[in-house]
Amino acid sequence: MVYLKNTPLEECLDSYKKEFSKLIEIDKIEPEDSLGRVCADNVYATRSVPHYVSSAMDGYAVKAEETVGANVDKPVELKFDKQAVYVDTGDAVPDGFDAVIKIEDVNKLQDGIEIIGAAFKGQHIRPIGEDIVAHELLLPKGKTIEPMDVAVMVASGTKKVLVTSEIKVAIIPTGDEIVSHKNNPQIGEIVDSNSHLFAALLKKWGANPVVYPIVKDDFKALKETVKDAAAKCHMVLLNAGSSAGKDDYSSEVINTLGEVYYHGVAIKPGKPTILGKAFDKPIIGVPGYPVSGFIVMEKIIKEIYHSLMEITSVPSITLKARLTKPAVSDLKHKEFIRVKVGKVKGKVVATPLGRGSALMNTIVHGDGLLTVPSNSEGHRAGEDVEIELFKQLDLEKTIMAVGSHDLCLDLIAKGVTPKYSLNSAHVGSLGGIMAIKKGQAHMAGVHLLDPESGKYNIPYIKRYISDEKVYLLSLAKRTQGIMVQKGNPLNIKQIGDLTKISIANRQKGAGTRVLLDYLLYQNGISPKEISGYNKEYFTHLDVAAQVKSGRVQAGMGIYAASKAMEIDFVPVFEESYDLLITEEFYKSEGFKVLHSVITSTSFKQEVNKLGGYNLKDCGNIISIEGSKKK
Amino acid sequence: MVYLKNTPLEECLDSYKKEFSKLIEIDKIEPEDSLGRVCADNVYATRSVPHYVSSAMDGYAVKAEETVGANVDKPVELKFDKQAVYVDTGDAVPDGFDAVIKIEDVNKLQDGIEIIGAAFKGQHIRPIGEDIVAHELLLPKGKTIEPMDVAVMVASGTKKVLVTSEIKVAIIPTGDEIVSHKNNPQIGEIVDSNSHLFAALLKKWGANPVVYPIVKDDFKALKETVKDAAAKCHMVLLNAGSSAGKDDYSSEVINTLGEVYYHGVAIKPGKPTILGKAFDKPIIGVPGYPVSGFIVMEKIIKEIYHSLMEITSVPSITLKARLTKPAVSDLKHKEFIRVKVGKVKGKVVATPLGRGSALMNTIVHGDGLLTVPSNSEGHRAGEDVEIELFKQLDLEKTIMAVGSHDLCLDLIAKGVTPKYSLNSAHVGSLGGIMAIKKGQAHMAGVHLLDPESGKYNIPYIKRYISDEKVYLLSLAKRTQGIMVQKGNPLNIKQIGDLTKISIANRQKGAGTRVLLDYLLYQNGISPKEISGYNKEYFTHLDVAAQVKSGRVQAGMGIYAASKAMEIDFVPVFEESYDLLITEEFYKSEGFKVLHSVITSTSFKQEVNKLGGYNLKDCGNIISIEGSKKK
Repeated sequence: MVYLKNTPLEECLDSYKKEFSKLIEIDKIEPEDSLGRVCADNVYATRSVPHYVSSAMDGYAVKAEETVGANVDKPVELKFDKQAVYVDTGDAVPDGFDAVIKIEDVNKLQDGIEIIGAAFKGQHIRPIGEDIVAHELLLPKGKTIEPMDVAVMVASGTKKVLVTSEIKVAIIPTGDEIVSHKNNPQIGEIVDSNSHLFAALLKKWGANPVVYPIVKDDFKALKETVKDAAAKCHMVLLNAGSSAGKDDYSSEVINTLGEVYYHGVAIKPGKPTILGKAFDKPIIGVPGYPVSGFIVMEKIIKEIYHSLMEITSVPSITLKARLTKPAVSDLKHKEFIRVKVGKVKGKVVATPLGRGSALMNTIVHGDGLLTVPSNSEGHRAGEDVEIELFKQLDLEKTIMAVGSHDLCLDLIAKGVTPKYSLNSAHVGSLGGIMAIKKGQAHMAGVHLLDPESGKYNIPYIKRYISDEKVYLLSLAKRTQGIMVQKGNPLNIKQIGDLTKISIANRQKGAGTRVLLDYLLYQNGISPKEISGYNKEYFTHLDVAAQVKSGRVQAGMGIYAASKAMEIDFVPVFEESYDLLITEEFYKSEGFKVLHSVITSTSFKQEVNKLGGYNLKDCGNIISIEGSKKK
Repeated sequence: MVYLKNTPLEECLDSYKKEFSKLIEIDKIEPEDSLGRVCADNVYATRSVPHYVSSAMDGYAVKAEETVGANVDKPVELKFDKQAVYVDTGDAVPDGFDAVIKIEDVNKLQDGIEIIGAAFKGQHIRPIGEDIVAHELLLPKGKTIEPMDVAVMVASGTKKVLVTSEIKVAIIPTGDEIVSHKNNPQIGEIVDSNSHLFAALLKKWGANPVVYPIVKDDFKALKETVKDAAAKCHMVLLNAGSSAGKDDYSSEVINTLGEVYYHGVAIKPGKPTILGKAFDKPIIGVPGYPVSGFIVMEKIIKEIYHSLMEITSVPSITLKARLTKPAVSDLKHKEFIRVKVGKVKGKVVATPLGRGSALMNTIVHGDGLLTVPSNSEGHRAGEDVEIELFKQLDLEKTIMAVGSHDLCLDLIAKGVTPKYSLNSAHVGSLGGIMAIKKGQAHMAGVHLLDPESGKYNIPYIKRYISDEKVYLLSLAKRTQGIMVQKGNPLNIKQIGDLTKISIANRQKGAGTRVLLDYLLYQNGISPKEISGYNKEYFTHLDVAAQVKSGRVQAGMGIYAASKAMEIDFVPVFEESYDLLITEEFYKSEGFKVLHSVITSTSFKQEVNKLGGYNLKDCGNIISIEGSKKK
């Protein structure tokens, strides 16, 4: 596919935004209904606050000059009405009185008060306009109205406030392969989640999204839908499928109805964006991959939205962090890389996540974006970089788990909430050990079988971590087994049975592959005797899917994968899924919370509900001294 | 007034929160309606994403082993159907194929494709569950649902999600002196702005506020209203007037219906808070001063709300800054001091604002809170402190103006929006000069008459700033004059006429007082000849209010004050209101924007609309070399 251009983001935005002034109407509304709306003009105070001279205390209004010289030895007596008048906080100070003495500081007599200290002119008195002066600027144009803004408008007499009208944004999902999430998608069908992502983002910003029904790949239908949307909304987003053909449809439709200004923006992900105009309105083609869509919404559509609404935008929250892995980038694009952020051993660290623009989970589990400008090749591991956070983080209350993933970790995540949050990145067992070694994580889920000793985890930890003391917390024995077709029609019962059938295997290096090799060796079986031994798949689920489809009869995997694919499972081995823990974390409050979670009855009940686990050692801890420990 | 206790905030919250578990119901809703709601339980994926092996590119599905050895010199040919199948991005990869070659990288032939590079197993292929694996944790309990969370639920087959029900919070304004903002308040009446502040805060957090009509100071009426509110809502906020008598009403009502747990929390502002329980629900007395109310909402009610909803709360945004003024505090209370934050000469500085708990504007114009714990006497000027920001700031785009205030500054604020924001603190002309000298501001509004030379501003600047170059930008000649009763019944025309009447005067040191003295001297009049010369008031508006009430016949002031008070004005003098500017700011982009604003036609038109200004020199700049400049 050829893009017309690869125009820098800032250049596109600057000139494109100028095309759409005066698109937004203005509403005149009551201040109490204005929370979150945007001031369309400066708002000035109608009335001063306070609007009369008032007492700031409960006490007596007096004339300061009549209190001069009062002290404990020589109290001064002031008569009611002429010299002292009782006032509640907020009451008007009577004419001629110029100070208030607190009720605690007076001695009440029959017909007056006795004071033992002088009052100064203006004491405990609120002058007119102390808080707000009539005609002063309350809120500048472009300000998003916050709660206290509502209060000052109400207090100072604003009857109506001018705000920008809500902007209506049409979202048109297109593509023959796209189906509503109300359906169960078949092979080759993709659920339309983007429309809901875009609608939610727009709602969060304060806009009003209008989601259209899915339009098939039909030029005329698409053209008519865009026409209708442009008539009813201020902006139209065309969410094309990600294939070349469909992108061309969008740009063709826009060119027929109006004009394409830019096709191809130099950002990654998000490159195939189309910025066009028809019927004087922005018509924008947003790429179909969810992460591309998210980035284009945040970096392009949000900017255009702010410009249309004349909103004074609030800058993003940023944070300096040290990169744990390199973040390379090409020179041609401004690239946005999702990262996870944590604080380990007193240092804030950021770990780049998967780049795939289809990986929604990198946004859900990510904490922010690292921006690599075009003309930069990126950053090396160990460099300090600035991260734009999705939201503010409490790094002191975040437990960083990097390693092999297991569903039990999800239950721990639930258990430590809301005191702590468990931030987990899935890099495999060995990756987890390395993350602990490099000080990039508090804990790592590990399940590594040492084929020589037949032992789990400890041999590897001793091999790789030699210079510090670490702890190994038993979480669960996890059942590995043979995934078989529903009902186990071939009556597979043990490893030996694999010689009679065809299997799907995991890739070299995967824990399950290591285990299969170990079990074959123990049973005196050569891999050559197994049909399909060299058929490699990258995930438990891929193997399970092969079994389910009937292309193979079995494959090694964990119970959860067979459950996810709704096939059957023959348990053959219990592997140890443990948590490797740093000494720093072991001694922390966070660990206490975590340990109390995994030893609780409710945690055990929930794990047992998942199936495929044995919790007899759960919670046991051993310490492992590094051989070279300083 | 005596508080039962002065209990530390954390102690109150910890034990009080425990009283209310299981108050919140659970809703089962569709994921697309769940934005901003809070997960009531872990949400797990129902379906893997992708749910079939799919192509990540537009191109040809191939078998990797058949591509081995392909290069430019020795292209490999693959036949359609058996060896190469066209796939769009997202299409299922046919059974038996294990790699995809991008369409750009193939040469299409009659009955097949020619490739010049080998493909590896899994190339451009998305395995099942690459993004999301069925049964994995999508969102943990307590998470507030963000846009991408909606998308992952939709994509992975969530049909319904369990969220906590919206919490209903009753707000009951009470007090004989409280009136609705729909009325025009009379002397002694206070507009109910707190209900709208509290309602807006609750809405912003995601709660559902129910504002009751104002209840008079009537024990029985208040009791019945609380009873009704507790029946209909999850929590009841009693917003008592700030006087002692009314606070006692609230606690008496709560004690009659249930029990007061705490009366008096060791925070400032916010001390008179009442935490009680009736009908198993939290019934809370919130103090009446707006800033106290705001702090109690943010520091107490929000905590209780989060606890009830089991929300994993997002920490506040913090920032380190250097204090420009001391922030002293007493030992007994945890004190929350509002501050303004800016960046001047590369340093982030924080300036404490007025402490008065009635000053709403310190929240509107403030940027955040400095917390001084109990048992601390506060901080000295120059200390580095941590500020909890109300929202993220773009300090590079903030112009710090500290000095004398004028309405023209408000129009500049509007003009520089949205490129810059003008952050202004009102400390008087001399305070502004000192702020510039100390590097705490970019610019200062000044109007100081030197009585000896009869010149404005420059003599003072030369006197106080001797070690650097600064610039003085003419903004406006501001008309000072004699404020007189409507219609000027005594036909006052000049300074000499003041000898015949009674006036109200400003306090010693005020610019207007200096000007009056200068004008009297010029006219050969002794202050003794002026009746009321020693009657001192602290603001223009107070003087204007004296004139309006008829207690005096005139007073010196600016046109805006007479306009605010709707009285008449006799111009007598034009003072120079200039902007003193640092060299750093003079050379910045921000100054260019500011200068283009004040020299624009629209700015001049708006200033002329205000009245009382002469703009003939507006925009002129002179530089002032410090005599001791290094």
